[in-house]
Amino acid sequence: MSRFFTPTLAALEPYTPGEQLAVPGLVKLNANENPYPPAPGVAAAVAGTIEGLRLYSDLTEAKLTAAIAARCGVPPQWVLCGNGSDENLLLAIRAFCDQNTPLAFADITYSFHPVLCNLLGVPAHVLPLREDFTLDTAAYDALGETIVLANPNAPTSLLTPVGAIERIVQRNPDHPVIVDEAYVDFAGPGASCLPLVAKYENLMVVRTFSKSRSLAGARLGFCVAQPGLIADMNRVKFSYSPYNINSMSEAAGAAAMADEAYFQKTVAAICRTRAETTAGLRQRGFTVLDSATNFVFAAHPQHEAAALCGALRQQNVLVRHFTAPRIQNWLRVTIGTPAQMQRFFAALDAAMG
Amino acid sequence: MSRFFTPTLAALEPYTPGEQLAVPGLVKLNANENPYPPAPGVAAAVAGTIEGLRLYSDLTEAKLTAAIAARCGVPPQWVLCGNGSDENLLLAIRAFCDQNTPLAFADITYSFHPVLCNLLGVPAHVLPLREDFTLDTAAYDALGETIVLANPNAPTSLLTPVGAIERIVQRNPDHPVIVDEAYVDFAGPGASCLPLVAKYENLMVVRTFSKSRSLAGARLGFCVAQPGLIADMNRVKFSYSPYNINSMSEAAGAAAMADEAYFQKTVAAICRTRAETTAGLRQRGFTVLDSATNFVFAAHPQHEAAALCGALRQQNVLVRHFTAPRIQNWLRVTIGTPAQMQRFFAALDAAMG
Repeated sequence: MSRFFTPTLAALEPYTPGEQLAVPGLVKLNANENPYPPAPGVAAAVAGTIEGLRLYSDLTEAKLTAAIAARCGVPPQWVLCGNGSDENLLLAIRAFCDQNTPLAFADITYSFHPVLCNLLGVPAHVLPLREDFTLDTAAYDALGETIVLANPNAPTSLLTPVGAIERIVQRNPDHPVIVDEAYVDFAGPGASCLPLVAKYENLMVVRTFSKSRSLAGARLGFCVAQPGLIADMNRVKFSYSPYNINSMSEAAGAAAMADEAYFQKTVAAICRTRAETTAGLRQRGFTVLDSATNFVFAAHPQHEAAALCGALRQQNVLVRHFTAPRIQNWLRVTIGTPAQMQRFFAALDAAMG
Repeated sequence: MSRFFTPTLAALEPYTPGEQLAVPGLVKLNANENPYPPAPGVAAAVAGTIEGLRLYSDLTEAKLTAAIAARCGVPPQWVLCGNGSDENLLLAIRAFCDQNTPLAFADITYSFHPVLCNLLGVPAHVLPLREDFTLDTAAYDALGETIVLANPNAPTSLLTPVGAIERIVQRNPDHPVIVDEAYVDFAGPGASCLPLVAKYENLMVVRTFSKSRSLAGARLGFCVAQPGLIADMNRVKFSYSPYNINSMSEAAGAAAMADEAYFQKTVAAICRTRAETTAGLRQRGFTVLDSATNFVFAAHPQHEAAALCGALRQQNVLVRHFTAPRIQNWLRVTIGTPAQMQRFFAALDAAMG
């Protein structure tokens, strides 16, 4: 860092994002991206915004918020959009945490939480998952801290039942509980905490357009909560990035949200391929957790994950390997198209010898 | 605010953005937007990104950074893009200020600076402009603080000569001097501090695509500085919003930056209309500052600015009026097309009776 850099951030540990390689013929299964393009209506919706780009975007994001609210069955005042769900998480942590109010989260979950805590000067309270990577819900009783849970969790792919999450929300009535449901659309019916939002003023559900809506490149997320929490988030947003979402992404998101048939079709295809991928890995001796997401989390008793990851990469197949404790021997493999998974298995078989 | 909101932000004063009304036939001269659409190549560039939106955007923004670097005549490592230049300012203040290092800025300048200082817990050192709204450069000698200057300034429209800015940079060698050049493309040749960046490791120039490039709705800004400052900014960026810019805006920005002819043509048209607008206002008895921007700042000895603003609005002509001390009797009028300015003057004549 330069001699001008603030000493208050000297200990900052930057986030390490998934590798973005541009190699022809690459099978990219390392960032939990959707293998299918965005809904067909997205192109025309975006094209319709180009002339108007000379004007500032709508800082209330009314059109996108309305599309989300209609799909989620809540009033628009319960929705706030973000420049990626990362921004929703940032706004929430800034609004509901401080040096005296820690953020509680699992030891194995979205790796961005400790990075944000570092940046914002918020103490991180890390609660270990159980040995089998399931959530130790009792550990969250009456914490006196703001809580963030990814459900389904990443990189484990495991879903915690809504009832267990509800219990955490109930046992922490004086603190927000933020449930990051980035992958919930792949978890089947009844997996989301969205129906609970009307019941609990301290519950916030965060969603993204990056996974099930095929819009990772548009940077769009949103959260749903009662108006009190949303107003708090807006208070921070307007002090930090009033025009946080550009006009093209807003139009793309609204169009993607409107096409329920395409959404259902692509999610179902990914879930089918997930079942085949899980079976294929288990046939090869992998332990594979029961995934409720668009990726699988797998470990092999004889083959080290790091070595497999490197051998796959040499064959232009990218998967994700983490060096964090407890998961060094696991691979996170995004579900691609059936053709991509054939390439993956061919490369895997070569790697396993 | 809700009972969950952090007390550390209880005093937050949210930014008040320019009014965004959607009325047919509206003449919108209140947000310094460009009256001309983006460069013709933008539509095709954006259309080419839609299929790929399923993938995350390039977190190094290599294509856009290359286009900017080529235009500015600097290496790509000297450039960092932002989700609007507001984000560049946020990253800079976070990287180079803290509770012990205040941010120094003028009393009359971009109204977002005090908002960001509030949010980030950075002391704001407000230095009054001179009586005639010019910069009191001697006041910035050896401040021992991070400095941000808008040049040309808003809402005054006045340009400070490069030599005076250079003196400030020289007299504060141990602190970054951030020069926000949002409007510099309208200031004529020799107005930018960009040529000084190679000379001073503490100088940062911030630019935007929102004004001269007609892309306010795409949310794109950038800054240029030596690699030390850029690396510091990246350190903050990767802890807070690694994928800050979406793929469509990146493509739009690169296409807009590549079309120099369209850029020159639209900037020249706005400068011509600015001269006509200034003359028309002066004919009507207004004091009009010599604008180096795409707006004019004007006051009338007999007509109160607030009343004029209201009367214009009733005729569907929006201009900006500020209630801040020293400028309550001034109007900021964005330069539109010649046809829009005819509508403006007709409404103004009616308002003045």
